[in-house]
Amino acid sequence: MENLKSYINTNKDRFISELIELLKMPSVSADPAYSHDVLNTAEAVKVALDKAGCDYVEVCETPGYPIVYGEKIIDKTLPTVLVYGHYDVQPPDPVELWDSPPFEPVIKKTELHPDGAIFARGACDDKGQMYMHVKALEYMTQNQQLPCNVKFMIEGEEEVGSESLEWFILNNREKLSNDVILISDTGMIANDVPSITTGLRGLSYVEVEVTGPNRDLHSGLYGGAVANPINILNKMIAGLHDENMRIKVPGFYDKVDELSVDERTEMAKAPFSLESYKSAIGIEDVYGEHGYTTNERSSIRPTLDVNGIWGGYIGEGAKTVIPSKAYAKISMRLVPHQDWKEISELFQAYFESLAPKGVKVVVKPHHGGYPYVTPIDSLGYQAASKAYQTTFGKLPIPQRSGGSIPIVSLFEQELKSKTILMGFGLNSDAIHSPNEHYGIWNYLKGIETIPYFYKYFTELNQ
Amino acid sequence: MENLKSYINTNKDRFISELIELLKMPSVSADPAYSHDVLNTAEAVKVALDKAGCDYVEVCETPGYPIVYGEKIIDKTLPTVLVYGHYDVQPPDPVELWDSPPFEPVIKKTELHPDGAIFARGACDDKGQMYMHVKALEYMTQNQQLPCNVKFMIEGEEEVGSESLEWFILNNREKLSNDVILISDTGMIANDVPSITTGLRGLSYVEVEVTGPNRDLHSGLYGGAVANPINILNKMIAGLHDENMRIKVPGFYDKVDELSVDERTEMAKAPFSLESYKSAIGIEDVYGEHGYTTNERSSIRPTLDVNGIWGGYIGEGAKTVIPSKAYAKISMRLVPHQDWKEISELFQAYFESLAPKGVKVVVKPHHGGYPYVTPIDSLGYQAASKAYQTTFGKLPIPQRSGGSIPIVSLFEQELKSKTILMGFGLNSDAIHSPNEHYGIWNYLKGIETIPYFYKYFTELNQ
Repeated sequence: MENLKSYINTNKDRFISELIELLKMPSVSADPAYSHDVLNTAEAVKVALDKAGCDYVEVCETPGYPIVYGEKIIDKTLPTVLVYGHYDVQPPDPVELWDSPPFEPVIKKTELHPDGAIFARGACDDKGQMYMHVKALEYMTQNQQLPCNVKFMIEGEEEVGSESLEWFILNNREKLSNDVILISDTGMIANDVPSITTGLRGLSYVEVEVTGPNRDLHSGLYGGAVANPINILNKMIAGLHDENMRIKVPGFYDKVDELSVDERTEMAKAPFSLESYKSAIGIEDVYGEHGYTTNERSSIRPTLDVNGIWGGYIGEGAKTVIPSKAYAKISMRLVPHQDWKEISELFQAYFESLAPKGVKVVVKPHHGGYPYVTPIDSLGYQAASKAYQTTFGKLPIPQRSGGSIPIVSLFEQELKSKTILMGFGLNSDAIHSPNEHYGIWNYLKGIETIPYFYKYFTELNQ
Repeated sequence: MENLKSYINTNKDRFISELIELLKMPSVSADPAYSHDVLNTAEAVKVALDKAGCDYVEVCETPGYPIVYGEKIIDKTLPTVLVYGHYDVQPPDPVELWDSPPFEPVIKKTELHPDGAIFARGACDDKGQMYMHVKALEYMTQNQQLPCNVKFMIEGEEEVGSESLEWFILNNREKLSNDVILISDTGMIANDVPSITTGLRGLSYVEVEVTGPNRDLHSGLYGGAVANPINILNKMIAGLHDENMRIKVPGFYDKVDELSVDERTEMAKAPFSLESYKSAIGIEDVYGEHGYTTNERSSIRPTLDVNGIWGGYIGEGAKTVIPSKAYAKISMRLVPHQDWKEISELFQAYFESLAPKGVKVVVKPHHGGYPYVTPIDSLGYQAASKAYQTTFGKLPIPQRSGGSIPIVSLFEQELKSKTILMGFGLNSDAIHSPNEHYGIWNYLKGIETIPYFYKYFTELNQ
C-alpha cells in the first residue's frame, strides 16, 4: 500500500468537503421534526457507498428509519468484513451553547487539533468516523488494494436505541454473514496514545412520571398539605444512591463482573492525569462510587444518571404552583454480565416502592443494550493492533469504554462474530454536547489505518 | 339600599360582558412577551373606573408596570376606603390542559356553580374580584348611595412580587391616605358558608442553579465519575425536609407563631371534609408535616415547595447526557413573625452547604412578603362581618388563608391602616391552574355585599 499516504494527501480536500456536505444534513433521529432530513441522509450515504466502489447498494426499509446496505464481494472464499456505523445524530440542543450553528460545519484549529477540526453535530459521532470507512474503501477499490470482501450496514436509529436494527438483522442473517465486524464509533486515549476499545457498558434507559393532584394547584392554598410531585420525584431520585454513591436498587450489583486486582492494576497503567481531566470539564473535584478511581468509575462500574428532569413552571419569572406532574429521564450504564432487561425491572420495582401514597408513579422502560467485551487474542483484535502499529508507530492500548453500543452484543448473538472497535475520536471531541468536533488529523489517520486492518485480517485468516 | 338587588338584576348582563372583555386581555406580568397587553389592560381599568363614577383617574407610571389610581372624595371629614386589586394574571401554562383557551372566556355551569361560571385566566384572581368593586362603586354613585370617600389602587405586578408597588406607596403616602383598605383577592369556604380571611402567609421565592461540568457531557464516557447537577440538585432538595416533613433549614421555625390548643380547636370548627378535599384534587392521601391537620398545614404552618424544575434533555425520545446545569424555582410560605428576608438568607446558607465540591450553586432570592393577621375586633372586620350577614343571611367565619398577599403587611407598615380581605372566590375556582373560573353568583353576590361594607364602616366610624 505504498501509495496510500500519497492518495490521501492528493484527495484530502475532497474527503473533507464530502464529509462537510454530509454534516450539513440534520439527521436527528430523536425528533420527528427532522424525519425528512434523516431519510435524505440515508440516500446520501447510499450514493457515497456506490461511488466508493460497492457493486451493490440498497436503502433497506425497516419499521423505523432505513438501513443503508452496501457490499463488494470479490471472492466468496476470502474473509468478509462487515462495517457498521450510523448516519443519525444526537439532538443539537442546547443550541444556544454552540459557538457556530450545529449543522453549518466550520473548521477551526484547537490546542489538541493544530491541523484543524470540523465543528458540527455528528462530526465525530458518527458521520466523521463512519465516512472514514467509505473513503478507505474508495482507496482500496481505486488502487486494487481490497484483499477481502466487505459489507456495509449504516443505520439511522443508533441514538434512539437501534430498535429497527434487531428486526433487520433477524431478517437478513444470510446477507449480513461475515467474519468480523468493524466499527468506528468510539475514541482513543490521545493522538500519540492510540487505543482500541475492548469493553463497552450496557444501558438501561427509562422515563419516569410522578403524578400528584389532578391539576396544578396554588402553592399558597395547598402548599404543605399535598404531596408535591417535584419534591417527591427529587426525594425518590435522591433515594437511588447511598452515601457511598452505590446504587440502592436491590439486586443491581448481583451480576456485576468484579475485576481482579491484577486487572485493575493493568488498567491503571493507561496514561491519565486527574488534573487535566478536571480542568478539561471545569470541575473542582470528581464525584462517584467510593473505592474506585475515575477511570474505573467510568468504565468497569455501573452507574445511574438523570439525563433530564422537568416539572412545574419553568418560564421566566415566578409562578407559585404545585404541578400535577413531574418527569425525569434516567439511564443506567451496565457492566459485563448485567442484563439490561432485568435491571430495568429491578429499577421499576424499587422506584415504585419509593413513592408515598399521595402520588402515582409510572416507569416507562425506553430502550437498552447489553455490555460487551472483546478478547484481545482474537484475530480481529490482532489485525487492528498491527494496523495501528503500522500507522501510529506504536502498539495501541486495550481500553474499556464507559459508553454503550448496545448492538455490539446483538451482533455477537445473532451473527456469531466478534466486533472490533477502532475509534479515532478523542474524549474532548464533545460528542453529545454543544460544539462537537472531529480532528482532521484523526479523520485522515483513520482513513490511513483502516486499509491495513483489511490487509492484516486477511493475512491472519490464511 | 332597597334598590341594590334590582339594580344588579337589571344590569347583570352588562356587568358580565364588561368583565369578559377585561378577561380577553392576556395581562401576564411574568412574561415580557405580554407587556403590551399588560399596558392595555391598565388603560382599560382606567376607563372602567372613570365610567363607574370616580372624579379623578390616573394611570401612574412606576419603575415597572403602571398602577391605576382612581378616587371619589365626597367629604374630607368622612372616612376613606382604599380599594386594592390587581389587573395582571398568572401565566396560563400548561395551556394544553385548558378545556377552552385561557383568554377566550366562556360561561359554563358546574356542580358548584349552577348559575354558571366564567372560565378564563384571571376570572377569579383577580380581575373578577377586582371588578366587583368597580361595579359596586357604579351602583353607589348612580344611586347616591356612596356614604364615604373611596380610592382605588389597581396594580399590574401582583403575580410577580409587586415590586413597583412599594416604590409607589413610599412616593404617594398622602394621596393613598385612608381609614381602611379593602381587598377581594381571597376565597370563602363555600357559597353557603361565608368567611373572611383574617390571616395570610408570607412568602419567600428563590431560584437555584446548580452547575457541574462546563459543558454537557456524554453520560457513557463520564457517567459515574462526575457530579451530575440534576442528581445533586435532587439530593439537595430532598435534604430540605426531614422524615416528619419538617423543613431542615436551621432557624426556619425559630420565630414561628405556635397557636394555642384553644386557637387550634376553634379553627377545627370550620366545616371541612377530608374525603371531598381529596376527591376534589384526585389524590389518594394527603401529605405534610406530621402532627398537624390538613387545614393547619395549609394555613398556620410554614411550607417549602418546588414550583418548577428543569435540566438536561427534556425533548422527545432519549439523550444520554450529563447536563452542565440544573435549575429549580422554590417558594416558602411563611407564618406570622417569620421575616421573609431573614428566611431567604437562612435558606441560601443552608442550601449552599448541601452542595458537594463537584458543583457550584447559585441561589437568587426572587421576591417575598410578610405574613399578616387582621384582628376581628377592628371596625373594618366588624363592618365586613355585618355586610356578609346582611347579604348571606349568616355571620361569616374568620379564617386563616394559606395564600400570600405580601403587600398587605406593607400597607400596614407604610399607610398605617388595616386591611380587610373580603374574598368571594372558592378553592375549587382553580386560580393559578388550568380552567380557572369564577362563579357568576359569586361575582354578583360580591357586587351586592360591598356597598353594605361602605355603609356599616361609615356608620361604625360615627
